[in-house]
Amino acid sequence: MKKQHDVIIVGGGVIGSSIAFQLSKRHYRVLVVEKGTVAQKASSAAAGMLGAQNELEKDCTLFPIALKSRAMFPGLAEELKFLSNIDIELIQSGILRVVQTEQEVAHLQSVAAYQQNEGESVEWLSKEQVKAKEPQISQSIIGGLYMPNDGQVSPPLLTKALAQSAVNLGAEILEFTEVIDFLHENGHISGVRTGTDNFYAEKVIVAGGAWSKQILENLELSIDAYPVKGECFSVRTRGPIIKSSIFSTGAYIVPKSGDRLIVGATERSHTFDESVQLSGLLQLMMNAIQIIPALKQAKWEKTWAGIRPQTGDGLPYLGEHPRIKGLFIATGHYRNGILLAPITGLLMADLLERKESVNHPFRIDRLSREVNL
Amino acid sequence: MKKQHDVIIVGGGVIGSSIAFQLSKRHYRVLVVEKGTVAQKASSAAAGMLGAQNELEKDCTLFPIALKSRAMFPGLAEELKFLSNIDIELIQSGILRVVQTEQEVAHLQSVAAYQQNEGESVEWLSKEQVKAKEPQISQSIIGGLYMPNDGQVSPPLLTKALAQSAVNLGAEILEFTEVIDFLHENGHISGVRTGTDNFYAEKVIVAGGAWSKQILENLELSIDAYPVKGECFSVRTRGPIIKSSIFSTGAYIVPKSGDRLIVGATERSHTFDESVQLSGLLQLMMNAIQIIPALKQAKWEKTWAGIRPQTGDGLPYLGEHPRIKGLFIATGHYRNGILLAPITGLLMADLLERKESVNHPFRIDRLSREVNL
Amino acid sequence: MKKQHDVIIVGGGVIGSSIAFQLSKRHYRVLVVEKGTVAQKASSAAAGMLGAQNELEKDCTLFPIALKSRAMFPGLAEELKFLSNIDIELIQSGILRVVQTEQEVAHLQSVAAYQQNEGESVEWLSKEQVKAKEPQISQSIIGGLYMPNDGQVSPPLLTKALAQSAVNLGAEILEFTEVIDFLHENGHISGVRTGTDNFYAEKVIVAGGAWSKQILENLELSIDAYPVKGECFSVRTRGPIIKSSIFSTGAYIVPKSGDRLIVGATERSHTFDESVQLSGLLQLMMNAIQIIPALKQAKWEKTWAGIRPQTGDGLPYLGEHPRIKGLFIATGHYRNGILLAPITGLLMADLLERKESVNHPFRIDRLSREVNL
Amino acid sequence: MKKQHDVIIVGGGVIGSSIAFQLSKRHYRVLVVEKGTVAQKASSAAAGMLGAQNELEKDCTLFPIALKSRAMFPGLAEELKFLSNIDIELIQSGILRVVQTEQEVAHLQSVAAYQQNEGESVEWLSKEQVKAKEPQISQSIIGGLYMPNDGQVSPPLLTKALAQSAVNLGAEILEFTEVIDFLHENGHISGVRTGTDNFYAEKVIVAGGAWSKQILENLELSIDAYPVKGECFSVRTRGPIIKSSIFSTGAYIVPKSGDRLIVGATERSHTFDESVQLSGLLQLMMNAIQIIPALKQAKWEKTWAGIRPQTGDGLPYLGEHPRIKGLFIATGHYRNGILLAPITGLLMADLLERKESVNHPFRIDRLSREVNL
Repeated sequence: MKKQHDVIIVGGGVIGSSIAFQLSKRHYRVLVVEKGTVAQKASSAAAGMLGAQNELEKDCTLFPIALKSRAMFPGLAEELKFLSNIDIELIQSGILRVVQTEQEVAHLQSVAAYQQNEGESVEWLSKEQVKAKEPQISQSIIGGLYMPNDGQVSPPLLTKALAQSAVNLGAEILEFTEVIDFLHENGHISGVRTGTDNFYAEKVIVAGGAWSKQILENLELSIDAYPVKGECFSVRTRGPIIKSSIFSTGAYIVPKSGDRLIVGATERSHTFDESVQLSGLLQLMMNAIQIIPALKQAKWEKTWAGIRPQTGDGLPYLGEHPRIKGLFIATGHYRNGILLAPITGLLMADLLERKESVNHPFRIDRLSREVNL
Repeated sequence: MKKQHDVIIVGGGVIGSSIAFQLSKRHYRVLVVEKGTVAQKASSAAAGMLGAQNELEKDCTLFPIALKSRAMFPGLAEELKFLSNIDIELIQSGILRVVQTEQEVAHLQSVAAYQQNEGESVEWLSKEQVKAKEPQISQSIIGGLYMPNDGQVSPPLLTKALAQSAVNLGAEILEFTEVIDFLHENGHISGVRTGTDNFYAEKVIVAGGAWSKQILENLELSIDAYPVKGECFSVRTRGPIIKSSIFSTGAYIVPKSGDRLIVGATERSHTFDESVQLSGLLQLMMNAIQIIPALKQAKWEKTWAGIRPQTGDGLPYLGEHPRIKGLFIATGHYRNGILLAPITGLLMADLLERKESVNHPFRIDRLSREVNL
Repeated sequence: MKKQHDVIIVGGGVIGSSIAFQLSKRHYRVLVVEKGTVAQKASSAAAGMLGAQNELEKDCTLFPIALKSRAMFPGLAEELKFLSNIDIELIQSGILRVVQTEQEVAHLQSVAAYQQNEGESVEWLSKEQVKAKEPQISQSIIGGLYMPNDGQVSPPLLTKALAQSAVNLGAEILEFTEVIDFLHENGHISGVRTGTDNFYAEKVIVAGGAWSKQILENLELSIDAYPVKGECFSVRTRGPIIKSSIFSTGAYIVPKSGDRLIVGATERSHTFDESVQLSGLLQLMMNAIQIIPALKQAKWEKTWAGIRPQTGDGLPYLGEHPRIKGLFIATGHYRNGILLAPITGLLMADLLERKESVNHPFRIDRLSREVNL
Repeated sequence: MKKQHDVIIVGGGVIGSSIAFQLSKRHYRVLVVEKGTVAQKASSAAAGMLGAQNELEKDCTLFPIALKSRAMFPGLAEELKFLSNIDIELIQSGILRVVQTEQEVAHLQSVAAYQQNEGESVEWLSKEQVKAKEPQISQSIIGGLYMPNDGQVSPPLLTKALAQSAVNLGAEILEFTEVIDFLHENGHISGVRTGTDNFYAEKVIVAGGAWSKQILENLELSIDAYPVKGECFSVRTRGPIIKSSIFSTGAYIVPKSGDRLIVGATERSHTFDESVQLSGLLQLMMNAIQIIPALKQAKWEKTWAGIRPQTGDGLPYLGEHPRIKGLFIATGHYRNGILLAPITGLLMADLLERKESVNHPFRIDRLSREVNL
């Protein structure tokens, strides 16, 4: 008997889980095939900042999409809590981006002007105002941009809540199952081959994060994507020391529940090595202490690294394979996978239902090099 | 300089944290002194059932108090979420107590009659009704008592949320700090001595769980308390298999977020050994599978044990030391520490403020044997 | 600049590490490419019995090879200790195979006769002799076969010692690096493609354990191999309770240093799922307690599963690819990977140097189905 | 029935385990009572350097004793391997103590002169000789003292091997059992009281490391001891980068099996807090990188802290209680517990048998302040 689903999603990270959730809400029979376990890789490694304004700044393709995705979080948090009983720990207390040089001041003030013009809340704070807002900030900080609507969530809890809600709506998740090839004929996808079994569906979505490129190898389509390692660490303090997420050039510091703080993240391209190098950790620690000197008294918790999917032009791939109908790809979210997960779920569901034009800036073949043609 | 607080609480488990929370709300300067880390022992080991009706059944001293404590949870959950951003994962989907023998039927029907008379919601379910409510229940179950208002929480999250909220209200928590003696003169407490320092306060509350008796050793008061080990294990399933907590004579099964199930608990008296014995684990697994056969397909997560504080007459000790004014004790909650934590916090705060009579059934000297007098 | 080595080994398990060690001793420049970390999967999950006589019993292709491999361990242990300072915890205290039925007695006595004829040490023990040798054995055991020369090692330490010794002799090991394709032209291998880089060598050896088949997918050669999950658990006792490894139909019990015992192993085919199912664990616990009742008092340590590479005819694949010269495969050792690792290292090194005929019973194309020809 | 042993040892760390081992060899019935588990605290946290020459330098009371203890290791390693099958990973490749200032040069050269005069092997190395010996050493190092006979072991394996060998010789170890008081009458010890039981013996030895002082509280004898936290971290490298242990003012680096390196240790007095502070970790990382710059490329493994027992005059307490006959104390080994464990085992066994005079420099009452007499 053939195992038949409507849609197979390759990858149980935050993107795959968000798509599974949206499609399950639309009553598709969804199968998620995950090489390891749900929420295992970058989706658990992220700090969870929702930096729509902080990360994307201004006039860029992703800015309006990121704003939309950020706006989905409050409703999504409630929906997921109801469906899965998992609280994603959404905190809407803003991101404060601090600067140490006049050059940065100039840049951020132009960002502020642009965003205010777009109708977004954003506030330039003087050195004194920064200290008033976050008294633990170092004297070396000369000002900052406060974006009250940029928030944060718990990335592992968000991913688990999405996956769990999808399951509770009828989706199936197979862990420890690796897709090693795709089944297709006459230019139409028909399923996937795993290490143990074939699974059949008329739509397949590859949401394999940084591993998407190699999952797609056998299809002779080489997307312009590469892995970027990000190293983080976390500490515990006695009582809260900051309220907002603090972002600077060399490190960001995100306050979590239980008086935990996550400090991130280094960037090292072209490696899948998930170990933390002493050099990266040391740099991150020094940068963080320079911003919040009280971190010196914090208690060490742990360090880890995640492998994030970057692309040649910095935009995600969200679209259908140019030659194999029914095969979709959703990857390349780089540092914004958590922020963009909700909207990506919606967009991919719409794309599957042909509600969305494929001719958007995220289409698959915009940068791809065709292999063997 | 003397380190002065209003109240020192010895123990950072769920009881100590609940008292710290209530006293912090009343603006006392609270210091919690914890030998290891907050929420480390039985407070993390519990399954978190709020079995006011299930555990205490009928005409007993604790029944009305347990009902009151259970009623505090919804408000407390919101308050703690607001203060600490920690969701305690309160689930109010009832406890279903199932039976396999006619003798148990008779007993539970008398419990039902009593509780209905007291105005509590409780429903006797036939074998068919049990199966309709929880289809995964075994054929060997011949009926069950459904108590819709008995719920459950996450014990470690409840404890951390209470401790964190206390800290956010001004309390101080010292971890890795062991109280090795009490400071008192002329029959009044004045503080505690730890391995490194003395700390001073006019009130001290011992909330050391199963370790309370030995903490009190130096005071020549031997409370009639002893440790009871409880072994548990947890599994993960693909999608939810039960909705309510299921309780039977040999095991209970509590559904947690993320398709986890906790199965508990054995009872082994007079040991502080926190290891899990193969015999206990095996018995628990067989009992659980007998109730829910589908557990056989579940994936193993982990096993652990907690050391719970039992007393000679089964009632907690909540009161003031008979000869040392200002020294209070709150222990002996046995299997109901999570359920009774909210009301215990209130009661102890009232006791401290002399709002409560000390002459209640939980007073310290009701069973104690005086030593060396 | 091209990264050039003499030999690339795909897989850092016990087989890959043993080959790397032998080739490094012969002064080849070796690169090991490992998807995760060294000694991570089945090579760490095994109990480490060296059951040349116990597992292979009699007249079979592997029997003489297994005996040779077992004989290599004492010298290897010394060599690895010297080179890497890692003690592989070789214990040569025999395997006692116990029986509960007359049918098993007959079978084992025929095995004993055969092995004695072959000059191997083997001793049939009556019920009383079994009890005298291992007093903790259950009354339900009616006899046993004692093979004094079958021993055991620590599988993770063996694997790490081999890898470390290879590195100390000049080999390079790349962890977190996945081979996604092979480089070859005109029927000759020239290297491998990983997620980030190409690496070049004139010889490539695939030693990917149960994952070898899918590593080889792109080469249109489908070996007849499949994964078999084995679940184990371990406990700790107060003082030693057995001296030899005890083997029975339903479970084996291997005494490790530090009063640990490993109990193994279930067998579940055609899955890569590394989780432990409650049903398997329960069965294993009951079987083990039936043989050694004192295990009931043992303290739980942990449970885990390994995915072992089985083949259609039960023999490993050790040979060269039929159409791509220089590409070698070493997999399919099933439950005997630890035992056969030393001889496999030697055999593969000889094969590479053309000292060995390819026409042996382990050649690659003996069972393979050619794909798409 | 009274539980009767010959000797009860309070504490299952390296000191308690070494004493248990020596006494078991002399056929005493030994009971070790351990609050947590064997080898849990400082005995597992140490790096394991056997720095008899490096740590104790010259004319001091401990120097000859440390040399004797160091000399015991080779024989002990073989004996423990035989008895317990645990390899303690003794490496005798010397300690290289490097310097960065002329002042340190002068000091070390005087140490060298003294030690040579005492007949110990020690060699002063110029900057070039240091680089020749350990090429990864930084250019900032201007010389070093090489002590070829100072070695290292694995502290947790040493402790477990001692405990296990004691058990295999007949000793009993009770874990998770806390001694809360001592039984004594008429100035003679008769046993201990634990949280659950009384145990009886005519000799009791307190070997509780940094916790010894508070264990002894009830006996109205306050030894002049205090805890000193030491923070460490470990990394992994690709292949070995140093051969000897490298010691400098700010950090030491000890090469372990499997290409691990342990870097230690900070010193923070008067705390039992086992957490690692960011400030300590950061300082340690910077100091280590300054000595071995290649550490920057190393992979992070973990960080931890141990609480070491220091005394007022820096000497251990090894002796009998001044007023309670049969009660012995062995603590205060500070940073040399691993090095001194073998000789401490011997000394305490001799003391128990009255072979040793109590009037030695380690006697208990040399510094103690009598309390409340």
